[in-house]
Amino acid sequence: MQALVWDGSAAQVVDWPRPTLHAGMALVRVRLAGICNTDLEITKGYMHLRGVLGHEFAGTVEEGPPEWRHRRVVGEINFGCGACPLCWRGLQRHCPTRRVMGILDADGAFAEFVAVPVANLHRVPDTVPDDAAVFTEPLAAAFEILEQVHVRPATDTVVIGDGKLGLLVAQVLHQAGAQVLAVGKHEQKLEILRRRAIATVTLHEWSAAAADLVIEASGSPAGFAAAVKATRPRGTLILKSTCASEAQLNLAPLVINEITVVGSRCGSFPPALRALEAGSIDVRSLISARLPLSEGVEALRRAASPGVLKVLLEISAER
Amino acid sequence: MQALVWDGSAAQVVDWPRPTLHAGMALVRVRLAGICNTDLEITKGYMHLRGVLGHEFAGTVEEGPPEWRHRRVVGEINFGCGACPLCWRGLQRHCPTRRVMGILDADGAFAEFVAVPVANLHRVPDTVPDDAAVFTEPLAAAFEILEQVHVRPATDTVVIGDGKLGLLVAQVLHQAGAQVLAVGKHEQKLEILRRRAIATVTLHEWSAAAADLVIEASGSPAGFAAAVKATRPRGTLILKSTCASEAQLNLAPLVINEITVVGSRCGSFPPALRALEAGSIDVRSLISARLPLSEGVEALRRAASPGVLKVLLEISAER
Repeated sequence: MQALVWDGSAAQVVDWPRPTLHAGMALVRVRLAGICNTDLEITKGYMHLRGVLGHEFAGTVEEGPPEWRHRRVVGEINFGCGACPLCWRGLQRHCPTRRVMGILDADGAFAEFVAVPVANLHRVPDTVPDDAAVFTEPLAAAFEILEQVHVRPATDTVVIGDGKLGLLVAQVLHQAGAQVLAVGKHEQKLEILRRRAIATVTLHEWSAAAADLVIEASGSPAGFAAAVKATRPRGTLILKSTCASEAQLNLAPLVINEITVVGSRCGSFPPALRALEAGSIDVRSLISARLPLSEGVEALRRAASPGVLKVLLEISAER
Repeated sequence: MQALVWDGSAAQVVDWPRPTLHAGMALVRVRLAGICNTDLEITKGYMHLRGVLGHEFAGTVEEGPPEWRHRRVVGEINFGCGACPLCWRGLQRHCPTRRVMGILDADGAFAEFVAVPVANLHRVPDTVPDDAAVFTEPLAAAFEILEQVHVRPATDTVVIGDGKLGLLVAQVLHQAGAQVLAVGKHEQKLEILRRRAIATVTLHEWSAAAADLVIEASGSPAGFAAAVKATRPRGTLILKSTCASEAQLNLAPLVINEITVVGSRCGSFPPALRALEAGSIDVRSLISARLPLSEGVEALRRAASPGVLKVLLEISAER
């Protein structure tokens, strides 16, 4: 099969063995896949993956248990061992021996087929098209914030970063009732939020006031310092981005202002699928380009360009 | 009066004007004062203080409202404006225009007299001697952790650092019922905890397991990385030390393991005074040396030496 593979020094579309299925796994024919900043970080050395990239996808079950066959699905990306205390608590995404699709010891979804544990599959509601379903994984990561901290309607919230994740986070928190101000660099990205009545400001016009809750989704070390400055004493700062590089950081302001910093990664899929079914989050406005898998290298290049939001890879005929 | 003053380049004992009293302030004759790591950080440039050092003290009210006169007191060190929303919520220690005794825009307690807002004074119980009362401020900082996070008896807790603050934190958390392991470098410091039946391990024998709650009280940038490693996925890491220097830090593990980092600074005095009255925390074993104020420069040097815990300055005759 065709696959977009990272070999440690370059990404290329190559002929790659179709996954062999082990017990408890399903083979999914990928229809549409999305490029995430984590994919771009991997090509800078993050996680030391060698193999097929990609973890955001929508597809159809090709092989697996009869009740799943030919179902339209999305799949959670952390493959837990199923036998440790973290897996027992439903935290497969923190299993110490987990594999992670397209990130850690597991081939990803930028390929004609991807192997996914049956336990990780979720049916896509009929009314949700593939180009919305493909956003389930990043949207679940946005909903994860609501699992971790209590966001109240009175919570004065700032979201820093108008990239793909920032735009989803701002919408999720706004929909949860919080008073949201989104801070970004790109007028046309912020416009997506303004259409949903979310307040926005450009970075150079913004004067950081003391917010209850600040979400750092800019993915830059400078974003962290700005986020600390924007958090009120005893407030909460959510870190939503992983960076390949270490940064020079001063933690003293966290101590002086007694700020709580919460690292936040993947979320569970059901709340994201419910929101997509309700149509309450605008995901399709985030699509900047759609390219065939054969142009995967160009798609990665495009995804890394300034001003570009989601780049999708069209793999099999979609619905 | 005599005072130990930091002028931006050197600490010296000099003749210094006795504080002039404004409305709402009391003049306290200092009997005993303690040297804190923050004092040492100030002499490395932290906070840019110019003036009298010191914020841990026990003394007697010399001038002030009649009901306070001649009372034996300790004093909270953050002087809030009293008129802002943070002060109204009882968070004077986060008032944006606060002054802080011996740290920020307010002369400190390494002097014959110190000016303290009457609202910040607390009476010392008769049964608590001065050389225990002088630990009220750092002990309150240890109790602050219990204000910020819910420590349960089942909370598997690691305290990193066997300095003054680490030894107080380990005792407070142990007394609150948590299962505590203290990690340090100095056998004779850890011995103080073992006498209280607290488990200890030396840094080089310790293999960081995944604890629910980790307290970073080592004050070194290396301590932060060790603390992150010792925290379980979804666990909590309390930062208890401010450092003058920035450090090269990698925040990605916080995101991947969804760790909550809580900055923690000063606490309110009543729980600390109750513990001192009960005699439930061993503070006097932490006293390494007692020097007169005239030898203040030597006392600072001594406090910065490896293996030394609390150095006290004897100022007026104590009780």
